Parts: sequence; structure tokens; C-alpha cells
Amino acid sequence: MKIVVQKFGGTSVATAEGRARAMERIIAAKERGYAPVVVVSAMGRRGEPYATDTLIDLVKSIHNDIEPRELDLLISCGEIISTVVMATSLKKMGYAAVALTGGQAGIYTDGNYGCAQILDIDPKPIINHLCQGKIVIVAGFQGICADGSTTTLGRGGSDTTATALGAALKAEVVEIYTDVDGVMTTDPRLVPEAAILSDISYREICEMANQGAKVIHPRAVEAAMNGKVPIMIKNTFSDAQGTLIAENVAERVITGLAHLTNITQVKVGPLDGNDVQLAKVKVLKTMAEARISIDMVGVAPNSIFFIINGDDTEKARTALEKAGYKTVVETGCAKISVIGAGMEGVPGVMADVMESLDRAGVTVLHTSDSDITISFLIKEEDLPKAIKILHKSFNLGKK
Amino acid sequence: MKIVVQKFGGTSVATAEGRARAMERIIAAKERGYAPVVVVSAMGRRGEPYATDTLIDLVKSIHNDIEPRELDLLISCGEIISTVVMATSLKKMGYAAVALTGGQAGIYTDGNYGCAQILDIDPKPIINHLCQGKIVIVAGFQGICADGSTTTLGRGGSDTTATALGAALKAEVVEIYTDVDGVMTTDPRLVPEAAILSDISYREICEMANQGAKVIHPRAVEAAMNGKVPIMIKNTFSDAQGTLIAENVAERVITGLAHLTNITQVKVGPLDGNDVQLAKVKVLKTMAEARISIDMVGVAPNSIFFIINGDDTEKARTALEKAGYKTVVETGCAKISVIGAGMEGVPGVMADVMESLDRAGVTVLHTSDSDITISFLIKEEDLPKAIKILHKSFNLGKK
Repeated sequence: MKIVVQKFGGTSVATAEGRARAMERIIAAKERGYAPVVVVSAMGRRGEPYATDTLIDLVKSIHNDIEPRELDLLISCGEIISTVVMATSLKKMGYAAVALTGGQAGIYTDGNYGCAQILDIDPKPIINHLCQGKIVIVAGFQGICADGSTTTLGRGGSDTTATALGAALKAEVVEIYTDVDGVMTTDPRLVPEAAILSDISYREICEMANQGAKVIHPRAVEAAMNGKVPIMIKNTFSDAQGTLIAENVAERVITGLAHLTNITQVKVGPLDGNDVQLAKVKVLKTMAEARISIDMVGVAPNSIFFIINGDDTEKARTALEKAGYKTVVETGCAKISVIGAGMEGVPGVMADVMESLDRAGVTVLHTSDSDITISFLIKEEDLPKAIKILHKSFNLGKK
Repeated sequence: MKIVVQKFGGTSVATAEGRARAMERIIAAKERGYAPVVVVSAMGRRGEPYATDTLIDLVKSIHNDIEPRELDLLISCGEIISTVVMATSLKKMGYAAVALTGGQAGIYTDGNYGCAQILDIDPKPIINHLCQGKIVIVAGFQGICADGSTTTLGRGGSDTTATALGAALKAEVVEIYTDVDGVMTTDPRLVPEAAILSDISYREICEMANQGAKVIHPRAVEAAMNGKVPIMIKNTFSDAQGTLIAENVAERVITGLAHLTNITQVKVGPLDGNDVQLAKVKVLKTMAEARISIDMVGVAPNSIFFIINGDDTEKARTALEKAGYKTVVETGCAKISVIGAGMEGVPGVMADVMESLDRAGVTVLHTSDSDITISFLIKEEDLPKAIKILHKSFNLGKK
């Protein structure tokens, strides 16, 4: 049995047109001899009767503090309703389908309501239905924990359901249908020449996602990677070829550019005293105690600097000043990341980037790099200019 | 642990006022030292976002022919949403509560989607939560079958959930909260003097319900009767004492009057041939083959007569005439039933009834009787007059 997992997001199941296109994809797979397992998100926008947000608004109107366990039980109804809609749509087209909750599909998670992790998938329930020739529709974003309570998977949830099922069922491919044509070299709102990547490696897409590209959640990629199942990112509404995410794809020096905005740079110093090293550690501990995530940490002889989410600016400043540190914050920054698995061992990438930005008159506040990524902190107003020049320098646009 | 099961119907959970009154009942039980297990129906009316009918309309707008299994999965969301609403309302009042689906509450049914029967209840999940001091909220009307699919219980569903849980948990009492003050001697729309019964036996209430009283479904009563758990019918919105349904209540000769309208009398005959007895059997078989339920069957030397639901009139006439029987139908009839467990062995009840109706000028078309019930078929236009005179003759009104 050749299994394909097909995941349709909210925009694909919310409208009759979206569902019609989804049906075409599912039926085409079935007719090509595949056994389709379909993962669906909740449908509908706030205010529509069946939307998850409508359900949450209803309960929050009674009491804002819903128990996490009960909130998950409530939210899970959104995806369940979608499964019944999709199964019934397939029945109308003459295809036998069965709608399964996460629990019925054998998805077992830990008990961290709202952000549960999949611990195990029992493939038997789905396999049994597939063996009867049925198309299986699974509610995304949910599972059950040891005591039988319903859990939700948190961010990237339905994509993770799809890729984890793909791995557990040894699917030939996991198709993630969305409303874009695939993974792009960079944000097309900033760079109109941005091109669709025909393929990208697991670790590159994880890095793109971590650095701000919104196409698929890293958790979902990891589940596919662990099962060595390729992912295809495709557009429900177009016949574009899409982007293949797999292990062994040709590695380019530079594959794409991602960016994050609303970043604040924090510089702490000068640090006095006999033990400046210890003072630096204490600064980092002050941030940890305030539960503020930091990134791009750099150290100078008597100072330390890092970046935080702009929303944490005042919290960070207060914590540091209360601890007696001289602190300078630079709000309104952006982080650009240049990502390419082929840059490992290739000299001069950092130099090329710096040269391009310098020529464009963009000030680099600070930098960091890892195996396959180089990141630059700049002012947010320089972002469009910077990302355009880098995209052009590295020749990433449409060929 | 003294357990009380409290069931709140749609009218009790749909509005903020209803929920507030329900909260009072639940909290009062808890404060009196009971461990409350609360069963809730779905909330909301057609068009409201969270109403069961809204969900069904949504899917039926796609395809009218929903698979029964998927329809049950969809419908079950309505009660689940109610459980979360109630648990959150209790949390707001400072009480720990947990919301359970039918399956999570250990309710196992057969696989007859839409009208599943409870096969077994595992009391452990609920008992565990009660032992932690939590108020348990259970989604009414639903369970799971052997393969883990969600089922719904059909008519009387949430009441049956409550009484079956009452029996399985050995509850002290099952309280059914509704929008009337209790079980009445007869329909107060026809007889303004109708009185609330302070108590009634299991078999009398079953008979009342079967003969048209709409207070509680016979299936729900049977589940309580099997577990010997008393039921209290109470009004969410008033402090009326309510009606106790139990095994050993003082048996009156006449407890109440029930009625059914839209009845058709069917008379088949004269039946010719050597074997009139066989002809009568064939008439009954003709009805069975047409899948029409019959009641109040009477036989005369060369004819047979019975009643059917008025909606089946044309179907019955066609089937009988096609089979070659001379048939007379009398549409627009009503059936009045006089119910009382004390009438067994008491002579003259039938005579008293006939005399009262005769004095009121009501023609009795035919009669039938069982251990605790005497039924009369009359014309529907005579119903108000007939039921008023009987109610008065037997002195059933407010004392």
C-alpha cells in the first residue's frame, strides 16, 4: 500500500472553493493508486459558527481563565467538525471516507495541554481503515494523553500531525497544502523577484523557519526528518510544482534569506569589578530569571550584548537596572539571516554579505553565525534595502 | 462518598440565567457534602454558533446524506462544548471541575450510530476525579463503541446518560432538571387544574411516557429502575419540590392521564373465505411488511381493527387495498390513557371511565387495557372535554 499524507490548512477547508480544490487533490491521489490520509485544520474565521475562535470567545465570555485541559477539549471540536465536513464532501463525490479524532487515529501525546508533544502513534487504526479502501480524514493539531484526555499540539500543530503520521505510516510523501506556491528564497512582499525553491533540505528549512520564514513549523520538519519522509509544500489553489523538502537535495552556498522584525538590541556595560567574566554570567542569569529569551549573544572585553523580542524591552531594562547594570537598548531592529547548507567550508560568504550591505549604506549592528546560517542585526528601516541587495548579490531571484 | 447525578437540559444551559441556576444546584449539592456528577445537553438553538442544529445544517448544506458514524461524531461536539462551558462556569465560582466526553466518562455503547444503547459503564474515570474533590461534568447523549468511534444515544439520550451513570456509580439520587415543576397528573394546557405528583412509581412513569407524557424517556427510567436509583424531576428555574420517581411509592388507583393525538383508526373487513383467522394474521403481516407500527388491536368475528400514527394513514391504506382488503380509516383520533398501578385487581375502573365519558357525550371508538393502564380511542375534537371530565371524576386536581 502506497500511502500519501495530505494536509489542508484552514484557508483550504474554510470555503467551498477551497474544499473543491482539496477534493481534487485527494481524489487524484486515490485514482493514481495511493491510499490517502488527509489531515485537516479547523475551518472558519472568528464569528463563523464553527470557528475555533468563536468557541473560545464563547467560553471566555463566561470566564477568561479556562483550565488548559478544558480549553484543549473545546478547541479540539474545531478540527473534528472539519473532518466530518471533508468526509461528507468525499461521500458526495462517491468516495468512502472515515473521520477520526486525533485519539481515534492513534496519536498519543504527553499531558502538556496547549503544547503537547506526540509520544507515539499507533498506526493500526488508520491502516485498518485504509485496508477497507477508505480515505482517512484525521483531525489535525490534537491527540490524547495517558488518561484519555484530549490534548492539542500547539504551534505548527496540524503540520506536525501530518508529518508525524507520515513517519509512523511510512508514507511515500507528506503533502502540505497551503495558499502559497512553495518555499520562497525570501519574503516576496519585500523582494518581488523572490523565487520558489524547487527543493530545500530539512536542515535548511528548519533554519529558515526558525529565522522568521512562516512556511512550516520546525517541529513538523523534525518529525518528517526523523522518519526520512519527504515533504512537498504545495498550493491548494494553483498547479505550481511546489517545493520538495528532503534529506539529499543539491546544497547551494546560499539557499534563502529569512528575517525577523521587532527586535531590540541590549548592550550592558561597562562592567566594573575584579571579575568581569562573572559579571557577564550574572547578566545572562538576570535575563533567565526574568524569563526573557535572548539570542545573538556577543561579548566585548568589558560589556555584553544580545538581542531580545521587542515586546520584552521594558521588562529587560527594568530587570537589568534593578540588578545595577548600566544598560543601553536599541529598539526597532531587524535580524536578517542568510541560510545555505553549502556555505560550510566556503570562505568569504560573510565578507561578501558585509561588502554588499556596506555598499548599500546599511549599518550592521552586530552579527552571529552557525554552520549554515549567518545573521545580521540592522535597523528595521534598512530591512527592505538590505534584503533586496542581498537577494540580488547572491543571485537568488527567478532564473 | 455520597454521589448525586444532576442532569441539566438544553434550556438550563443555553442562557446565562439558566447556567446561574444550574450552578446554584450543583454548588448546593457540593456544600451539603455530595459528590456531584453533572450531565449536560447541548446548548443553543439553531443559528447560534455552538448549537447542534447549526453544525448539522453546515454539513447538510454540503451533502444531505451524512454517514451515521460521522453524524454522531459531529453532533457529539455540541455536548462537549456544553461541558467546557459548565466546567469553566464552576471554576469562576471557585470550584474545581473536569469536563469529560462520554468516552472519557467510561460510557461504552453498541455501534448503532444515532440510537446506540449503553452496554457498560466503567465507573473508575469518574470516581478518580471525584476522589480528587472535583465536580465531574459529563457530555450527555454520547458514548464510544468498541472501535473507539463516538456514538450518540438517540431519543432521551442525556436523561439516559444521567440515570445509567446513577446506576453505575450507585448514586443516592439522579436529579433531572428541566423547565417544568415535575410530573403532572395530566397535560396542564388541556386541564388547568392539573397537579404536580409528589411521587410516582417507575412503571407508572414509563407508562405515562409511552402514552404521550413528555417528561422523561422510558429508556432513562429503565436504566434507573435496573439500578434501583431514585430519580427526582425538578425545575431549574423554581424551588418547587419536584416529583420523586422510585420503586415503592404509595400506589393510587389512578395516578395520571396521558394522551396521544394524530391517531388513525383502521378497520379491515368484512373478511371473507373459509379461514377468517388466517385472514386476520395476513392483515397484521401486511402492516409489518409495510413497516407500520400498530397498537390497540381489536378483533371482531369477521373484522380486525387497530390504530396507527396519522402520518402512516395513506401508506397503510395503499398496502391494505393492494392486498385486496376492504379498509375503512378514521383519521383525526386521539388516545387517552388512564394510568395507575393501584388499579390492578380493583373492579369498576373501566365502568367508571365509560360512565364519565358517556355523561359528557364523548363517543368511545374502542378501548384497550393492560395491568396498570386503560386506553380509549376518541375523536380528537373530544379530547379537551374528555380529559377534563376524567381528571375531575378521578379527583386528580390540586388538593
